[in-house]
Amino acid sequence: MKKINFKEKLSKFSDHWSPKVIAELNDYQFKLVKVEGDFVWHSHEDTDEAFIVIEGEMWIDFENDAVHLGEGEMCVVQKGVKHRPRSSSECKIMLVEPRGVINTGESEGELTASNDVWI
Amino acid sequence: MKKINFKEKLSKFSDHWSPKVIAELNDYQFKLVKVEGDFVWHSHEDTDEAFIVIEGEMWIDFENDAVHLGEGEMCVVQKGVKHRPRSSSECKIMLVEPRGVINTGESEGELTASNDVWI
Repeated sequence: MKKINFKEKLSKFSDHWSPKVIAELNDYQFKLVKVEGDFVWHSHEDTDEAFIVIEGEMWIDFENDAVHLGEGEMCVVQKGVKHRPRSSSECKIMLVEPRGVINTGESEGELTASNDVWI
Repeated sequence: MKKINFKEKLSKFSDHWSPKVIAELNDYQFKLVKVEGDFVWHSHEDTDEAFIVIEGEMWIDFENDAVHLGEGEMCVVQKGVKHRPRSSSECKIMLVEPRGVINTGESEGELTASNDVWI
């Protein structure tokens, strides 16, 4: 059992939209991501997905709505719901979702990141 | 889909060792807890449990070790592992664990809190 420090882990990478696993809880993973710019519209057909903002601010666009998240705020995107994360400047977030979830959901493309990359 | 602000939710209660649910992710829950003093030694036989410190500092004692957690740090206690959370002054934390987990695990007693209390 060891502690995990978010700032120390965030110092280990600089790429955007590329989730890094920092911990597992049963078959779920905690992943840190740095986001900047517009991500791709996508959904995850089999799972909800939690976004927790650690530093900075971001938006999650939905088809008829948008949620703004700042530091110390979170949002759970329900399974099957189309969404587009975006941020005008770098934002540092943590995702919580089952092991194996692909970042771009069913919208695979150039923003699809390698999965299960630990730091 | 709505955002959840940790500080706003933390302002809604003041009791210690009594987890309040703020969000669900599939069959998992995010719970805020204010802790102070020594909790009871216990374990959860069927699940891991994540501790994330939002404000303050705390310790988790294990049988042969202890982990100190400050703001922006987390620890996953593996299933079946005996542990005792404690803090000399109030610490505000978030737990992530499956819906239905009882705070005192197999050590039911006066610190056992009501389950599935939402704020």
